[in-house]
Amino acid sequence: MNQRRTTMKVEIGSVTLGNGHPIAVQSMTNTETADAAGTLRQIRRLELAGCELIRVAVPDEKAAKALPEIRKGMSVPLVADIHFDHRLALMALQAGVEKVRINPGNIGARWKVKEVVQAAGDRAVPIRIGVNAGSLERRVLRAHGGHATAGALEESAAGHAAILEELGFRDIVISAKASDVPRTVETYRKLSERFDYPLHLGVSEAGTVRSGTIRSAVGLGILLEEGIGDTIRVSLAGDPVEEVRVAYEILKSLGLREHGPIVIACPTCARAQIDVARIAAEVEERIADVKGSIRVAVMGCGVNGPGEAREADIGVAGGRGETVLFRRGKVVGKVREEEMVRVLVEEVRNMEGGG
Amino acid sequence: MNQRRTTMKVEIGSVTLGNGHPIAVQSMTNTETADAAGTLRQIRRLELAGCELIRVAVPDEKAAKALPEIRKGMSVPLVADIHFDHRLALMALQAGVEKVRINPGNIGARWKVKEVVQAAGDRAVPIRIGVNAGSLERRVLRAHGGHATAGALEESAAGHAAILEELGFRDIVISAKASDVPRTVETYRKLSERFDYPLHLGVSEAGTVRSGTIRSAVGLGILLEEGIGDTIRVSLAGDPVEEVRVAYEILKSLGLREHGPIVIACPTCARAQIDVARIAAEVEERIADVKGSIRVAVMGCGVNGPGEAREADIGVAGGRGETVLFRRGKVVGKVREEEMVRVLVEEVRNMEGGG
Repeated sequence: MNQRRTTMKVEIGSVTLGNGHPIAVQSMTNTETADAAGTLRQIRRLELAGCELIRVAVPDEKAAKALPEIRKGMSVPLVADIHFDHRLALMALQAGVEKVRINPGNIGARWKVKEVVQAAGDRAVPIRIGVNAGSLERRVLRAHGGHATAGALEESAAGHAAILEELGFRDIVISAKASDVPRTVETYRKLSERFDYPLHLGVSEAGTVRSGTIRSAVGLGILLEEGIGDTIRVSLAGDPVEEVRVAYEILKSLGLREHGPIVIACPTCARAQIDVARIAAEVEERIADVKGSIRVAVMGCGVNGPGEAREADIGVAGGRGETVLFRRGKVVGKVREEEMVRVLVEEVRNMEGGG
Repeated sequence: MNQRRTTMKVEIGSVTLGNGHPIAVQSMTNTETADAAGTLRQIRRLELAGCELIRVAVPDEKAAKALPEIRKGMSVPLVADIHFDHRLALMALQAGVEKVRINPGNIGARWKVKEVVQAAGDRAVPIRIGVNAGSLERRVLRAHGGHATAGALEESAAGHAAILEELGFRDIVISAKASDVPRTVETYRKLSERFDYPLHLGVSEAGTVRSGTIRSAVGLGILLEEGIGDTIRVSLAGDPVEEVRVAYEILKSLGLREHGPIVIACPTCARAQIDVARIAAEVEERIADVKGSIRVAVMGCGVNGPGEAREADIGVAGGRGETVLFRRGKVVGKVREEEMVRVLVEEVRNMEGGG
């Protein structure tokens, strides 16, 4: 693992990004923002899943008018996602949002940009510049042969940042997403070289839950392992709660965040003595609410089983006719297959309780 | 993307690993190998999913005796996975398997190792050395403070390789897997520095389909992006066909293999004008059998939609009250939401047919 890149610190309400702070997990609602009650129901589910920053789209005045009620009903910082319209940004800031995502180059007349920057600065609310390959400025595209290359994405982000910097505003987070992994990775490497601002990572339009999960894990995994990235958003066409779960799995896989148990399980083969897939999946589901980072191993046979089970906090390893239970490296008994799920779940809950 | 590392070339029947050849996708059956008919049914499903090398565990003589029938009934190369017992390796070689996975250091007496190496050499069958953190030699563990570190994994692999090299056998593939991503990545970086042999990548005991997919995508993604790896196996406690699907998604995400269509879809937000998640998932499922690498975009609104849809081979982008259909960069019409799945599937099938 590479050292995390040093960045400036940016405060989004109670959450601090950059400068060594934990990599924050965020998501975005897909309800009608104007429907404050419905949006808050989804926000509550996101909060329970561990989402640390929640963004809502603000496409019109009706949505902006719902922001005060939404803000009041939630615990984690609220981010308003705005395109073009500076009045919506001002309304969002008045409503008390903790971050605004808006690209200053798209706001229009200088006085409009100034008003937004002034209002954000007065409230110590950061601005995220969010560039997407699908909506680059024509001017930038032309300069890059008509293609949304990594260089074009970088140039677009730099252009937006320069507008804020000229106004003395440096409370900035940057993202620049493409819909494929190689371009996303190349773009963020460039951004990380060029800027001290915290970076918001994401592969845009990653796809369905099935394929988007994999594309996000590959793209964000590569960048995070290099030490790049201060907050991540996994984009999936599906329930945003799934985005949060996937984000934590990515961070846990690299040891960058702890967030509940880790269940390892062998893929099983002709050597397996127990129904590993069923047992592992059942245990994983039944301990999903556990907060502690407890490592559970479900291993089918005696080849790698004892080694892996011994390194886990609690583990079982199948053998000829009997399965051995390991607790923190020591054999503590045998367990029958039909008891295995119950025993593992109990052991995890005991450990969670300080046992 | 980094250049792929140069390695020696190893031929496994009709599949060549290393030296610039495509990264091969492999999996392992989880049926009883002794049940040849049941194993062949699973092998057939793996072949249909695009699996290019199929491994079976050979834990005993009954399993070894089923190998000739299994070999006869399949099209892709067969790999026998053997622990300790050199007679099983000899039986597998006689049965015509195209690769044997066995760790020579675990075979025992020198004459046994020699017999296996001789039989493999006579048939031009490569040997994979497969080291796992869960089953390291005690001697190696002791030398590394009792822990299966990346250094310990490397040392174990080097020890096994030295035994083969001393016997003049260099038709070798190496893997050394740990059950967590950082250790797996560190280990393969060391192997890649040290050896010219092709590397078989995997995160061992990655876990359930839900979490193992993400751990494998992160771990293998990091290594593949660095140019490391010549064949990959995704380990999941579940249906091995899922391992093949995930492996291809990882390779496709990095542009390393083509394997059917890529569906990109926006995560949707309050701006979405169409039911992106449902449409994308339905289209993805209904074109799963398409072989061509056609890029499909399902985008909910006018912000990034037209840009992404234009870059796809076929795409839709929602707008105020109407959704625009793009074909290879050009607007070709409008499409109603209830027609969208049908139209996109038809367009993909037309393109597949050379349209």
